[in-house]
Amino acid sequence: MQTRAAVAWKAGAPLTIETLDLEGPRDGEVLVEVKATGICHTDEYTLSGADPEGLFPAVLGHEGAGVVLESKVPWLKPGDHVIPLYTPECRECKFCLSRKTNLCQAIRATQGKGLMPNGTSRFSLNGEPVFHYMGTSTFSNHIVVPGIALAKIRPDAPFDKVCYIGCGVTTGVGAVLFTAKVEAGATVVVFGLGGIGLNVIQGAKMVGAGRIIGVDINPGREAMARRFGMTDFVNPKDVANVVDHIIQMTDGGADYSFECVGNVQLMRQALECTHKGWGRSIIIGVAPAGAEISTRPFQLVTGRKWEGSAFGGARGRTDVPKIVDWYMEGKVNIDELITHKLKLEQINEGFELMRRGESIRAVVEF
Amino acid sequence: MQTRAAVAWKAGAPLTIETLDLEGPRDGEVLVEVKATGICHTDEYTLSGADPEGLFPAVLGHEGAGVVLESKVPWLKPGDHVIPLYTPECRECKFCLSRKTNLCQAIRATQGKGLMPNGTSRFSLNGEPVFHYMGTSTFSNHIVVPGIALAKIRPDAPFDKVCYIGCGVTTGVGAVLFTAKVEAGATVVVFGLGGIGLNVIQGAKMVGAGRIIGVDINPGREAMARRFGMTDFVNPKDVANVVDHIIQMTDGGADYSFECVGNVQLMRQALECTHKGWGRSIIIGVAPAGAEISTRPFQLVTGRKWEGSAFGGARGRTDVPKIVDWYMEGKVNIDELITHKLKLEQINEGFELMRRGESIRAVVEF
Repeated sequence: MQTRAAVAWKAGAPLTIETLDLEGPRDGEVLVEVKATGICHTDEYTLSGADPEGLFPAVLGHEGAGVVLESKVPWLKPGDHVIPLYTPECRECKFCLSRKTNLCQAIRATQGKGLMPNGTSRFSLNGEPVFHYMGTSTFSNHIVVPGIALAKIRPDAPFDKVCYIGCGVTTGVGAVLFTAKVEAGATVVVFGLGGIGLNVIQGAKMVGAGRIIGVDINPGREAMARRFGMTDFVNPKDVANVVDHIIQMTDGGADYSFECVGNVQLMRQALECTHKGWGRSIIIGVAPAGAEISTRPFQLVTGRKWEGSAFGGARGRTDVPKIVDWYMEGKVNIDELITHKLKLEQINEGFELMRRGESIRAVVEF
Repeated sequence: MQTRAAVAWKAGAPLTIETLDLEGPRDGEVLVEVKATGICHTDEYTLSGADPEGLFPAVLGHEGAGVVLESKVPWLKPGDHVIPLYTPECRECKFCLSRKTNLCQAIRATQGKGLMPNGTSRFSLNGEPVFHYMGTSTFSNHIVVPGIALAKIRPDAPFDKVCYIGCGVTTGVGAVLFTAKVEAGATVVVFGLGGIGLNVIQGAKMVGAGRIIGVDINPGREAMARRFGMTDFVNPKDVANVVDHIIQMTDGGADYSFECVGNVQLMRQALECTHKGWGRSIIIGVAPAGAEISTRPFQLVTGRKWEGSAFGGARGRTDVPKIVDWYMEGKVNIDELITHKLKLEQINEGFELMRRGESIRAVVEF
């Protein structure tokens, strides 16, 4: 079949809308009609050329929602509503069975090469293959994905909202609920009040955190963060030392901190502003290639823990449907985070909005 | 009263045996007759002058066992056998009540200044005060310590062995049992096979670890480590890259690693040789002042956790008596680790044995 898709031809160039050839699903694969997709910083990271593993030409996009058209796995049938998962959940590999991580490795090798598990791409143009991206490629109206990389969700959830659960919402809310398992009454510090940080904040509010401190150099972020549950705002430009300031305002430090920017200096501050004895600092942001974090080991020996979270620690097929339920039940706010709606033809505008910091999330509807 | 004690007069100088004046216990304090004390690297760290918080003159020593002579707390009476605790357990402070840490802070400020909680020293010579050390000062035959800094132990345990539980045994065994909570079948890597590393190994064996890999540049350490439970030995001098080697021999990395040296390069290796998704690396060793650890944040985002352990995560009054029981039941081997027994007058020889790496533990008996 054929499908419309935005294609990234090379680093730094705008996407172009093409009609691609799409091979049908093989065993274990599923054909999905993508209804909506978010545009995320990770797409921009790859498109910019900064991603050392980026491949071109490719169909980017990893934050979508859609409907199954054809399934070659027994647990999905045509008409099922789904969210594609860049972190799959095979429930059979060493990682899935460990009960300790969400980082299923079943299709890691081929996914990293922009290919389906058999080692080829389903996309092509004029007989030349076009790469998949993160196993999802949601900038295409139709995609073929492995069945283990699809979360089945309730049919009444609106595609143009729950697509955001495919990455940003789950990454932020999940880091609080699944990675850190923040408990009621805890003090939480969030570094960076963009799309991820706001979702960390609403996750912390959802589990009853006692105090939610947001840190950002942009005072324009304060109002929305407060609506999402932030109780205190710290602008590093207004204080002599962020770490000392947070330790003082929290009587010894935060119980949990989350770095949502990808800046290694902030990662250090996030660790060191947590409480002696039990502070846990979770790195969510993606740092530039080669950047390193550092601290004195004394910070750890005196009881702080340095950790990270990928896809919010969520097991995609198990946890993503729960987050969709929470959205439908009004426990998770997505509507306010989706600041722009675009047509596929406007997708380059969506990237521009993100680059200029004007959108929290721009969503493309097919 | 008066007591014999080894006094550290200044950095780098040998200890001298003195007869000190010892004030009796005040409210909340206890007079203890020390029967035996180990000599530990931390004593040497302070004596050498490397410890930026070191104070002189002081009575060093923090790894002792003895008998209560006079008590001003209701939970101890004359004749009780006790181990002094440099990490006390008040059971009332924010830290003790957190259920998340063993780092009781009740007397932290004065202890760090070499004083009892009221702000003075009980030791003096010719009317001039001599500092306490780590709240314990077990190089004195008699000591006054806060009652919250004494673990009451069974009366049939031999002082010259269980004194080692006052620091080294608990630090190593506890890091496995209380900090990491290593589970049966786990793969454990131990960097450094000295007194702490051997206790990590026996802790790992005690909880049924499946594979216990020891790493040391000294092949002379292999035989004893194997007796304590090490299953595999890696000499970094014999392999191209320790991290790659361990990842290969463990099919992806260790479940847990422990750094028992205090070397920041080893701390990084210890983290990076753990398994993607769930590896946890515990820093036990004390690094030189100012040294920093570093790694790429990707190591944490992909599921490894960087942590530390002080006094093995043990709550002194609660857990130290359990370890004494385990020793008496034959579950923990101490006898083989105590390689030298000395009189107080020979204490400087004990430091020399340690500096030359000839002893695992030298114990002074009063």
